[in-house]
Amino acid sequence: MTHDTSRFYQLWGEVSDLLVAEEVLRWDQETLMPQPGHVRRAHVLATVAGLRHRLLTAPELADQVAAGLDRCDPESVDREQLVAARREIERATRVPERLVQAIAAATSEGLVTWQRARREKSFAAFAPALERIVALRREEASIRAVGDHPYDGLLDEYEPGLGTARIGPLFDRLSDELAALVAAVADSGVDVDESAARGAFPHDAQLAFCTWAATQIGFDFDRGRLDVSTHPFCTGLDAADVRLTWRWDTGDFRRGLFGVLHEAGHGLYEQGLPTHWRRQPLGIARSMSLHESQSRLWENQVGRHRDFWTFAAPRFREHFPAAPRGDAESLWRAANRIEPGMIRVDADEVTYIPHIVVRFRLETALIAGELDVADLPAAWNQGYLRLLGLEPRDDAEGVLQDIHWASGLFGYFPTYALGSLASAQLFAAAERDLGGLGPRFAAGEMSELLDWLRDRVHRHGSRYTADQLLERATGAPLDPEPFLAYARGKVDALYGVAP
Amino acid sequence: MTHDTSRFYQLWGEVSDLLVAEEVLRWDQETLMPQPGHVRRAHVLATVAGLRHRLLTAPELADQVAAGLDRCDPESVDREQLVAARREIERATRVPERLVQAIAAATSEGLVTWQRARREKSFAAFAPALERIVALRREEASIRAVGDHPYDGLLDEYEPGLGTARIGPLFDRLSDELAALVAAVADSGVDVDESAARGAFPHDAQLAFCTWAATQIGFDFDRGRLDVSTHPFCTGLDAADVRLTWRWDTGDFRRGLFGVLHEAGHGLYEQGLPTHWRRQPLGIARSMSLHESQSRLWENQVGRHRDFWTFAAPRFREHFPAAPRGDAESLWRAANRIEPGMIRVDADEVTYIPHIVVRFRLETALIAGELDVADLPAAWNQGYLRLLGLEPRDDAEGVLQDIHWASGLFGYFPTYALGSLASAQLFAAAERDLGGLGPRFAAGEMSELLDWLRDRVHRHGSRYTADQLLERATGAPLDPEPFLAYARGKVDALYGVAP
Repeated sequence: MTHDTSRFYQLWGEVSDLLVAEEVLRWDQETLMPQPGHVRRAHVLATVAGLRHRLLTAPELADQVAAGLDRCDPESVDREQLVAARREIERATRVPERLVQAIAAATSEGLVTWQRARREKSFAAFAPALERIVALRREEASIRAVGDHPYDGLLDEYEPGLGTARIGPLFDRLSDELAALVAAVADSGVDVDESAARGAFPHDAQLAFCTWAATQIGFDFDRGRLDVSTHPFCTGLDAADVRLTWRWDTGDFRRGLFGVLHEAGHGLYEQGLPTHWRRQPLGIARSMSLHESQSRLWENQVGRHRDFWTFAAPRFREHFPAAPRGDAESLWRAANRIEPGMIRVDADEVTYIPHIVVRFRLETALIAGELDVADLPAAWNQGYLRLLGLEPRDDAEGVLQDIHWASGLFGYFPTYALGSLASAQLFAAAERDLGGLGPRFAAGEMSELLDWLRDRVHRHGSRYTADQLLERATGAPLDPEPFLAYARGKVDALYGVAP
Repeated sequence: MTHDTSRFYQLWGEVSDLLVAEEVLRWDQETLMPQPGHVRRAHVLATVAGLRHRLLTAPELADQVAAGLDRCDPESVDREQLVAARREIERATRVPERLVQAIAAATSEGLVTWQRARREKSFAAFAPALERIVALRREEASIRAVGDHPYDGLLDEYEPGLGTARIGPLFDRLSDELAALVAAVADSGVDVDESAARGAFPHDAQLAFCTWAATQIGFDFDRGRLDVSTHPFCTGLDAADVRLTWRWDTGDFRRGLFGVLHEAGHGLYEQGLPTHWRRQPLGIARSMSLHESQSRLWENQVGRHRDFWTFAAPRFREHFPAAPRGDAESLWRAANRIEPGMIRVDADEVTYIPHIVVRFRLETALIAGELDVADLPAAWNQGYLRLLGLEPRDDAEGVLQDIHWASGLFGYFPTYALGSLASAQLFAAAERDLGGLGPRFAAGEMSELLDWLRDRVHRHGSRYTADQLLERATGAPLDPEPFLAYARGKVDALYGVAP
C-alpha cells in the first residue's frame, strides 16, 4: 500500500506559505514601507519567521516525513519531495531556538552599527558587533557539522553539496588565471572608450528602455513588477508573482540597465519554476549559485554580447536621442570595459571573481578561528593589493563596503563567483545545442535560449544539486574552463591580446 | 503578589503580528499584486488566517488570560487588556473551525459568482451562492448567541454593545425624519448647481490636490502612503504605517477628493492609536462605527463645510486652472447637492442613511429566517421605493450593487449609519468645547480639531465601547439628534427650507 502523503503536503504548504508571507513583508519593507514602520515590521517579521521555524520543526511534520519515507515508492517524485523536506527539517531542528534568536538580535544590531561605521569610515566602530556575529555563526557552523571544514556548515545553507575543500583550490586557480588576464589588459596599451555610457540619461527614458530590455529577454510583466529600492533585488513570491527592483544613475546608463537585466535573469528563473510543485519542497530554486548563474547569464553573456547591442542600439537611440554615441560598437565597448576597482558591485566580469576570492579567504579564516576580527581590515587590504593591485583609501570602500557580514551572511559570497562559472558553462552548452545564438540576438530572438534554460534549469525546481543539474544540462559538473575561455575571448576581442 | 503578564503579552503580540501580516498581504493584493498571483495569495492568506485562529484559541493563551484575571489588580489597565483578550478568544473559540472554513469557501465562491451575476445583471445567478452564505452565517449567529435577536451575534463582531433592539427603532426614527427632509428639498423648488464639480480634472492635478487636502487635515505622509485601488480603503498596519487608497473620475473631482478625505479620516484615527499599547488588545480601534465616525467627520463635517472651501478654493484654482468655476461658494454648493439616487456609495449625506436602513431591514429578516433569499430582489425594490422614492432599473444597480453580502458581511452595514450619527455628535461637542471651528477652517487651521479627536477618541484604542467613549467625549451615549440638527441646518443653508 502506498502511504497517503496528503497530510504531509498540507503541513509543508503551510511552511511554504509562511515563507511567502515573510517575503512579501520584506519586499514591502525595502520598496514602499514608510520608514517609521520598521519598529512594528521587525516584530511582525520575527513572529512570522519564528512560526515558520515552529511549523518546520513540529513533531507531526517529522512523523509524516518519516512515515512517508518508510512506505513510499522508492522511485517516486514523492520520495524526492520527502527527502528534500527531511533535509530542511533537519537543518532547522539542529540549530536551537536560542541560537537563532541570538543571531537575529546580533545581526539586527550589526546592521545599525555597520551603517554608522560605514558613514564614519571606521571599522573600529563595527568590530565589537562583528565579533559577536562571527562567534555566533562559528557556533552555528560547529553545531551543523557539515563537511570537513567548519565553514562548510554555513556554505551548505546556500549551496548544498559544495565544500571548502573544492572551492579553495578552484578559487586559487581562478585568481591566478584572472590575474594574468588583468595583467594582459594593463600591458595591452589599449584603453577601451566608455564615453558612450556617460551623459544625461533621464529617469523616465531609462525606465522605459530597461523595461523594454527586460521584456525582450522574456520577463513577463503580467506576472511581475519593477519597483525602486536602494539595493536591487528579485523576490519570487510565486511563478505568477515575481518582483524586480532597480536603481539608476542619471549620468551613466549602465547601473540601471545591467542591474535590471541581472534581476530579470533571477526573475526568469522564478517565473519558470514548476507550478505543479507549488507549495512543495521541490517547487523552489535550491542553489544560490544556480540562481546567480541565471542572473549573470542574462546580464553578461546576453546583455554584454556584441550582437545584443546590434539589436538594442537603435532602441537605445530612440530613448536617448541626446546620448553622446548610439552606435552598437561604442555601446558594446562601454558595456565591457575591464578595469580593477575597489567596489565589488561595480566590477566588470573579469575582475569580479577576485573580489569574491578575497572575501572567501577572509571568511573561511574567521569561521575557522584562524583570523581575529581585529585583524580583518589589514587582511582585507593585503588581499586587495595582492589580487587586484589596489588598496582602499578607507574602511568604507574597503572592509565595510558590503552589507553581508553585518547581516550574518557568511558562506554566501562564493555563490556569486560560482554563478559566474555556471553561467558561462550553461551558455556554452546552449550555444553547442542551439548554434548561432549571436545572429539570433542581433535579430532580437532570445526565446530559444530562454526555452533551453526553462527545459534544462528552471522546470526542475530544487530537484537536483547544482552539480547534478549542470551535469544533466551541459554534460559536466561545475567547471571553470568555459568561464575562463569566455573571459579570454572577451579580453582578446576588446584589448587584442589573447593570453 | 501581582501576576506576571509578560507571557500573556508575548503570546498576544504574536496574534497581533499575524493580523498585520494578513493586512499587508491583503493591501498588496488590492493595490500592486500582478493579477495571476491570486492563486498563490489565496493559499498564503488562508494559512496566515488559520494560524492566527490557532494561536488565538491555543490553551496556553486562555490559561494565561485566566490566571492573569484571577490575580491582577482589579483597577489596572492589565485587567482591561485581559478582559479584551478574553472577549476575542471566546469569540474565536465559539465558532468551530469547520464553520470558519465553510464560510471562507462559500464567500470565496460567492465573490466570483457575485461579480458574474452583477455583470449579467441577474440576481438569479447569485441566489444559490447567497443562500449558502446566509445559511452559514445564520448558523454562526445562533452559535454566537449574543443578545436577543439572531442578528445580534453578527452585529457584535463589528459593533460590540449595540443590539438590533436599539438600532431598529433608531433607524425607524431616522428614516422618517430624513424622508421629511428629502421631501422638503424636493418641494423647495431650488436646484443646487453642481456644474463646478464637472469638467476636466487631470489625474496628476487631482493627486496633488487630494494629497494637499489630506495633509491639511493632518494626515502624516511620513507615516503613511496613498495608492490606487478599485475600491478605496484604509489599512492601518501600525500608527507609523497607515495606507490609504483612492480612485478618481477625470470628469468630476468629487469622487477622488471626498474619497481621499474619507480614507484619510480613517487614517488619522489609525495614526493616533496609542503606540504604548502596540501589539496589545487595547491598542487597536474597537468599533467600526467609531472608525466610520472619523472618516465621515473629516469627509463631511470638515470637507463639505462652507469655511473649508473658503480655504481650499484658491488652492483648487491653482491645481485646476481650466475648471468651470473656482469660487468657494460654487464649490461648496457642488459638494453638497442633495438628491436621492440608486447607488449607496454615491449618496449625499442626507440620503445616505436610508440606503443603510433598507439593507439593515433586509439582512435582519434574512438572518432571522423571515425573508427568503429568492424574495430578496422584490423586497429590495420595495424598500427603495418606500425610503428613497426610486426603483432600480435592474439588479446590478439594485440588490447586486454591494460586495458585502457576497463577502459574507452581515451586520456591517449599520455601522456606516451609526458612524454618520457619531461624527455629527463628536463634531458638535468639539464645536462646543473649542468654539469657532468654522473661522479656523477658513484660515486652514484644522489642528485644534484633530488634537481634540486625538484626546477624546484616538488615544483610547479599544478601551471603551462606542457608547462609553461618546459619553466621555460628548456627555451622552450615541444620539441621533446632533446628526438630524446638522442635516436640517445643511438643507436650510442650501435649499432655504427649515423643516
